[in-house]
Amino acid sequence: MPDNSSIYQDIFKVRAYEVDVSNHLSVVSLANYLQEVAGAHAAALGIGMFDLKAQGLTWVLMRLKLNIIRQPMHLEELTVQTYPTGFEKIYVYRDFQVLDAEGQLVAFATSTWLVIDIEKRSMVRVPDFILSIPLLNDREFYAPAKNKIPKITQADFQKKFRVRWHDLDINRHTNNAYYFQWVLESLYPQFLESKQLQEIDLVFRVESVLGDEVESHQQMLSTDFFVHSLRRPSDGKELAQATTLWINKTGWKN
Amino acid sequence: MPDNSSIYQDIFKVRAYEVDVSNHLSVVSLANYLQEVAGAHAAALGIGMFDLKAQGLTWVLMRLKLNIIRQPMHLEELTVQTYPTGFEKIYVYRDFQVLDAEGQLVAFATSTWLVIDIEKRSMVRVPDFILSIPLLNDREFYAPAKNKIPKITQADFQKKFRVRWHDLDINRHTNNAYYFQWVLESLYPQFLESKQLQEIDLVFRVESVLGDEVESHQQMLSTDFFVHSLRRPSDGKELAQATTLWINKTGWKN
Repeated sequence: MPDNSSIYQDIFKVRAYEVDVSNHLSVVSLANYLQEVAGAHAAALGIGMFDLKAQGLTWVLMRLKLNIIRQPMHLEELTVQTYPTGFEKIYVYRDFQVLDAEGQLVAFATSTWLVIDIEKRSMVRVPDFILSIPLLNDREFYAPAKNKIPKITQADFQKKFRVRWHDLDINRHTNNAYYFQWVLESLYPQFLESKQLQEIDLVFRVESVLGDEVESHQQMLSTDFFVHSLRRPSDGKELAQATTLWINKTGWKN
Repeated sequence: MPDNSSIYQDIFKVRAYEVDVSNHLSVVSLANYLQEVAGAHAAALGIGMFDLKAQGLTWVLMRLKLNIIRQPMHLEELTVQTYPTGFEKIYVYRDFQVLDAEGQLVAFATSTWLVIDIEKRSMVRVPDFILSIPLLNDREFYAPAKNKIPKITQADFQKKFRVRWHDLDINRHTNNAYYFQWVLESLYPQFLESKQLQEIDLVFRVESVLGDEVESHQQMLSTDFFVHSLRRPSDGKELAQATTLWINKTGWKN
C-alpha cells in the first residue's frame, strides 16, 4: 500500500564529496537531495516513475527555483521535506524545505513538473490518479515560478561540456543536476569563490544524451544577477535557461 | 575525546543520483563511500585531516584496490566498514568491507596511504601519534596491493577531460573519485553496459587542479583485463595508473 501522507522527508548528512572548496554543501548536491526526496515521495504516493512507466507515461522536471538562505557545512544533518502543492492544466507543483539540526530553514524551492507520453514524446493532461493525491494545506506555499527567463543578447563567457556515461540516469538522459553544474561552471572561479548563490531558477527545455556537446553561455545583467543558456551546437537547440542571483560571502552567517 | 575503536562503520542507502543506467550503484559513488568512512574514522581516531594539518601534514591516498562481488541497487542499505590494518615504512594500510542488508559481503577494498609534509611536498615517516592507533586483529586482511601496474605500450582509446570547479575537494585538488570516473570513461559505452567491474586497482601519482586537461588512455591486455593511464599533456606527467578486470553481466546474481 502506498503511503498517503501529503508530506515526505528524509535526513541527509552532508558528505565530504558533496561539498565545495569552502567545505559547504554544493548547489549541485543540494539539487540532488531535492530530486531524491521528490522521487521517493512520488513512489510512496503510488505516482512514482515506475508507476507512470506502467502506463506509458513519465515525469519530466520542467523548472526548479531554488533559494539558499545558508549553505550548510560538511557533516551537518539536514531534514529535506517535500510536498505537492497543486495542479494547473498540465502542470504539477511541488515545494521543498531544507531544515538544519536546529530546525532553521536553510533553503527552499518550488518546482514544476509535466507528465509526458513516452511513445509520443508529448505532454498530456495530468491523469486522474495523480490529481487524486493529497495536497498539503497547512503550510505557506512558494509562488510557482512562471516568469519568462530573459534571452541572452551577448554572451560574456562560455564553457563546453560533453555528456559522460557517468552523467546519465536510468532513462539514459543526463541527470538534471548536471544542468545546474554546467550553468554554475560558466562563471569565473574567482566569482564562485567570493560569492554565494542566493537563488537559481532553471528551466529545463530539452534532454541531452551520451556524447552530446553542450555549451554553457552566460551574460551579466547586473553585478550579481546573471542569465544563462545551455545550448547543443549539433542541432542548435537550447537545452535550458536559467538565472542566478548572488550575494557576497561576507554577508553570510557562516 | 576521540573514539578509540579499531573499526568504524556507517550506513549508506543508495540514492538515485549514485546509480548508473542499470540502476546499480556506480563504482565512482562506491569509491566516495569508502573515502567518506576513511575520513570519518581517521577523525574519530584523532588522526583526521584537520589533526594532521595542525602539524603541517596531510594524508594522501596512494593506492586503492577495490573488488566488487555484487553491485548493489538503488535504495539498498549498505553498511560500509573500515579499519586500519598495519604500517610499513612510509605506508599506512586501511581495509574496507561493504555489506548488504543481509550481511552479505558485496565489495571489499584495500588501500595504501602516505603522510606528506604540506610545505615540503615530500613524504615523511609515519608519525608516532599515527603509529599508536589501534589495529584490528580479529579479521582476515586483504593483502595490500604492491605489484607494479604495467605500462601502456599502445593506447587503444583515449578521452579528454578538464578539471571542473565542482571536481575539487577542500584542498583544491581533484576529488580522488574523479580519477576512477576518468579511468572508466575511457572504455566504450557498449562495454560499460554489457560488463560489470570485478576489480579496479588504482595508483594515484600526481594531484590535478582546476582547469587541468587530463587524457585517459587504455589498452586491452586480454578480453576482460585493461591497463589505464591518466596523463596531463601540459607537463607530460602521469597522474595515475590503473588496471580493471571485468566479467559478463549475465554471470551476476542481480
